[in-house]
Amino acid sequence: MDGLMMDQPLLLSDLLWRTERLFHDKKIVTYLEAGSYHSYTYADFAKRVRRLSSALVKLGVRPGERVGTIAWNHYRHFETYLGIPGSGAVVHTINMRLFPEQQQYIINHAGDSVLIVDEDQIPLIEQVAELGIPSVRAFVVMGDKPLPDTALAPIYRYEDLIADGDEDYEFPVLDERTAAAMCYTSATTGEPKGVVYSHRAMVLQTMCLAMHDKLNMSESQVWLEVSPMFHVNGWNIPHTALMQGATLVFPGVRPTAGDYVQIVQDQKITGMNGAVTIGTMMRDFIRSSSQEWDLSSLKTMWLGGQAPSRAIMEWWERYGTCVVQGYGSTENTPQVCFSSIKSTLANGSPEDIYALRQKQGQPIPLMKIKIMSDNGLELPWDGRSAGELWVQSPFTASAYYNDVRTKEHMQDGWFHTGDVGCIDPDGYVVIMDRVKDLIKSGGEWISSIDLENALAAHPKVREATVIAIPDEKWLERPLACVVADDKSLSEADLRAFLAERFAKWWIPDSFLIVDTIPKTSVGKFNKKELRALYSENGMRGIEQHLEIVQDTVA
Amino acid sequence: MDGLMMDQPLLLSDLLWRTERLFHDKKIVTYLEAGSYHSYTYADFAKRVRRLSSALVKLGVRPGERVGTIAWNHYRHFETYLGIPGSGAVVHTINMRLFPEQQQYIINHAGDSVLIVDEDQIPLIEQVAELGIPSVRAFVVMGDKPLPDTALAPIYRYEDLIADGDEDYEFPVLDERTAAAMCYTSATTGEPKGVVYSHRAMVLQTMCLAMHDKLNMSESQVWLEVSPMFHVNGWNIPHTALMQGATLVFPGVRPTAGDYVQIVQDQKITGMNGAVTIGTMMRDFIRSSSQEWDLSSLKTMWLGGQAPSRAIMEWWERYGTCVVQGYGSTENTPQVCFSSIKSTLANGSPEDIYALRQKQGQPIPLMKIKIMSDNGLELPWDGRSAGELWVQSPFTASAYYNDVRTKEHMQDGWFHTGDVGCIDPDGYVVIMDRVKDLIKSGGEWISSIDLENALAAHPKVREATVIAIPDEKWLERPLACVVADDKSLSEADLRAFLAERFAKWWIPDSFLIVDTIPKTSVGKFNKKELRALYSENGMRGIEQHLEIVQDTVA
Repeated sequence: MDGLMMDQPLLLSDLLWRTERLFHDKKIVTYLEAGSYHSYTYADFAKRVRRLSSALVKLGVRPGERVGTIAWNHYRHFETYLGIPGSGAVVHTINMRLFPEQQQYIINHAGDSVLIVDEDQIPLIEQVAELGIPSVRAFVVMGDKPLPDTALAPIYRYEDLIADGDEDYEFPVLDERTAAAMCYTSATTGEPKGVVYSHRAMVLQTMCLAMHDKLNMSESQVWLEVSPMFHVNGWNIPHTALMQGATLVFPGVRPTAGDYVQIVQDQKITGMNGAVTIGTMMRDFIRSSSQEWDLSSLKTMWLGGQAPSRAIMEWWERYGTCVVQGYGSTENTPQVCFSSIKSTLANGSPEDIYALRQKQGQPIPLMKIKIMSDNGLELPWDGRSAGELWVQSPFTASAYYNDVRTKEHMQDGWFHTGDVGCIDPDGYVVIMDRVKDLIKSGGEWISSIDLENALAAHPKVREATVIAIPDEKWLERPLACVVADDKSLSEADLRAFLAERFAKWWIPDSFLIVDTIPKTSVGKFNKKELRALYSENGMRGIEQHLEIVQDTVA
Repeated sequence: MDGLMMDQPLLLSDLLWRTERLFHDKKIVTYLEAGSYHSYTYADFAKRVRRLSSALVKLGVRPGERVGTIAWNHYRHFETYLGIPGSGAVVHTINMRLFPEQQQYIINHAGDSVLIVDEDQIPLIEQVAELGIPSVRAFVVMGDKPLPDTALAPIYRYEDLIADGDEDYEFPVLDERTAAAMCYTSATTGEPKGVVYSHRAMVLQTMCLAMHDKLNMSESQVWLEVSPMFHVNGWNIPHTALMQGATLVFPGVRPTAGDYVQIVQDQKITGMNGAVTIGTMMRDFIRSSSQEWDLSSLKTMWLGGQAPSRAIMEWWERYGTCVVQGYGSTENTPQVCFSSIKSTLANGSPEDIYALRQKQGQPIPLMKIKIMSDNGLELPWDGRSAGELWVQSPFTASAYYNDVRTKEHMQDGWFHTGDVGCIDPDGYVVIMDRVKDLIKSGGEWISSIDLENALAAHPKVREATVIAIPDEKWLERPLACVVADDKSLSEADLRAFLAERFAKWWIPDSFLIVDTIPKTSVGKFNKKELRALYSENGMRGIEQHLEIVQDTVA
């Protein structure tokens, strides 16, 4: 027996319906340059979204076609988030930081029919176009300048295109399983893999993020979206702000840490989200600034990509800012877990509370998780048993787009995350490592992430990464690469610091104190590159490449 | 092109999965008698839910079959909320306050195969059974006593039944459109109409209620569920508390206003929901109590069924309690609107803020609304244009169960609520009246609800209702029935009070100051009964029936 309920689909266009009626006078603000902002209302936004949808239909974009974007975080990019899927097409956000060859691979693999790009990206798109992107039938340039002199053709100004659109365009009623968006993984190994999000998945994820015990995304928030909009729909934050009617602020083109600080003060930002490194860079900017900054409005700073250190959590408390975290991935639209403090645990010691806040949190509603041993057995939630995390939800990918690697990762109705972790009795997940980054030493596992977090907590350490290097006796041993905040930092300091926290055999054999650690295009430590440097030329390979300032190899 | 997302259905059993893993140690508490409570954990609850599901399967309850409940608000009743739909059957909550003939109609119309009832309801069920309920194959009695001596057969003790069940029972994976629950409207005219809720509708409604700018239902809440669990799934509050892991408190059997006050103090209740009359009765109890009550924990009191008066909002502020409201109906699972204050309006004068809080609020996410004129035109959201409210959402009924009246109410993909209202430019709905309760006077409309709210705001008035009575000259004219809080209240007081607020022709021609106003089984003013009394014997008919204390008919 079926329920007798309306068969209303879950569509992104219905989130827009809500906002243009209830929150039409609330604002979307984009940082242009020091002291200058673009600001308009959700009512204006909605009209331009409708114009864009109808203009794309006029341009011949058919339902299901992919329209790529290569752009910074700003109001026009957000218009494409709603305007492209509004008519039934798919918004494919492309990572701006990739090499032309990688962008070419992604555009060709997705079969993008139109590319909507920022004006400062034109020279790069020209390189990509020269490599060959045969599916692309048109280019659209977002910006305020006239069209550039370019071989890209046909090419349109975004503003001209939507000026021809219809601000009363009525969005079609789609099946909720219709593809709305697409994003490729950052792919630390192999070619990027494409994930295709349905309207249903995105609406459900939005609803979860708007709940209590998550981001605190209420109508009264003023939210700064720092996470790149090319990365998993900007962590789905813009959609959540839209549905809730929160004021949404974008940092615009090529923002610096100083810009973020300025924006928080100018706009009285109450919440923001970005990679852990954003929180660190803003701290460093403030420390080195001669100015006093009033950031007292900032209540929530969601730092992701890796676990924020206790040091960074404590530092931000001076402004009354609570650093929160979660865990997610491109395959999960993106959120899997979010960290909030269960009331039964809220009376713990400060040590306990920080330890809890450094966990990746509990699964969000609709998300099921389990950890599996190497031999396929489900492990207990005892906070110790470690295995690969498997997840299942209506917003988890069932397959990669046209990719044979689907069968490696999606099996038996679960997505195998490739992350190793444990789950405590209250359901808090701790991600210990990527399966491929675990260090297998003498038949035991060493978590590179645990070592990294411990090293990052040293007062003289800015950041640290740990990789496995081959070892004849133990199979693998850890090597630590550390960026110092203080030139007096020595290997002995680090050894002593770790010795208090870990068994002897966990302590890395080797430490490199370096100027910088290479990062991937989404800001994660590029361990793949470090391992490649080591396998080519051993420790020297890394040293030569990383402008070593102090070599303290044991 | 479809998204490549897992086809995970939205099921009530998945809310339980979440809670038993993340919030297993949180509590469900039921008031037994003064100073005494039953308390157990969500882990215990989940095991008993699984036992119940498997026991019902053993008893021969097949997927899609309706299992009726006639019970108070307590932990066992909540177990049936999850346990019956867990196996694919449908929990049909039956209004305890109906006459045996009405219960018989509902049980036969739904075709209930099993009835699960409280032990104190047995004498009433015996009467219903004598009238004939042929579909019922078994009775199950919830309570702590031995089985009563009864002709009802076969009959089982609930505790014996679930003792035979399997606490590790695995819930089947159902289609999310599967019926989960059923409820009949309270039907102020004609026979009750059946609404059948799908798992999808209930999960989506639960997600909406858990969001910010609604009830404030976070994990840390201690929530008292006063709204009857036989009425639209207890306003869906128990499901929301379950998903969020909030502590859930039930008032148990035959609770009084004094019991509610006692429970709030004992359990440090942070939020509660009930009919407007509950807030009034609790206030009256406290006023007449010689004891000091500490109700400072109570932050949120959601009063529904009608608009709470400003007087009751102000009264509860002494405890720091915010009285909130919404608007919904059996056909909407139930919530349509919820009232929260948009930040752009938060700086208004106290007058403005109270006026805003007395509106029924903005539509919740996924809910679309519009107001329609008599001749089928959509009216503007100007805060003045009044018409019938039409609604559309994934949790709105598409039909009544086996009922030809479907075609009157569900047309063109919209549910026609039968409520007349207007919508302001921020999307706040004001319900002015039931279409059938509007007073048509001289070609104009008079809102009985506006008059009632104004009368209820008079310091000497406890409650008031206004009905239309036939008038030769004007077609209809308003008649007010008022319960006084102070014996000095006179008609002249009321006339003067209304004259400041309404045009002259809105003022009722006649006022009756009475001891009581008849209510429906869900606590609304029974205007149908008042109109019937009037049509039989005019004003005298009402007077004779209502034990008039002071007759001030003009």
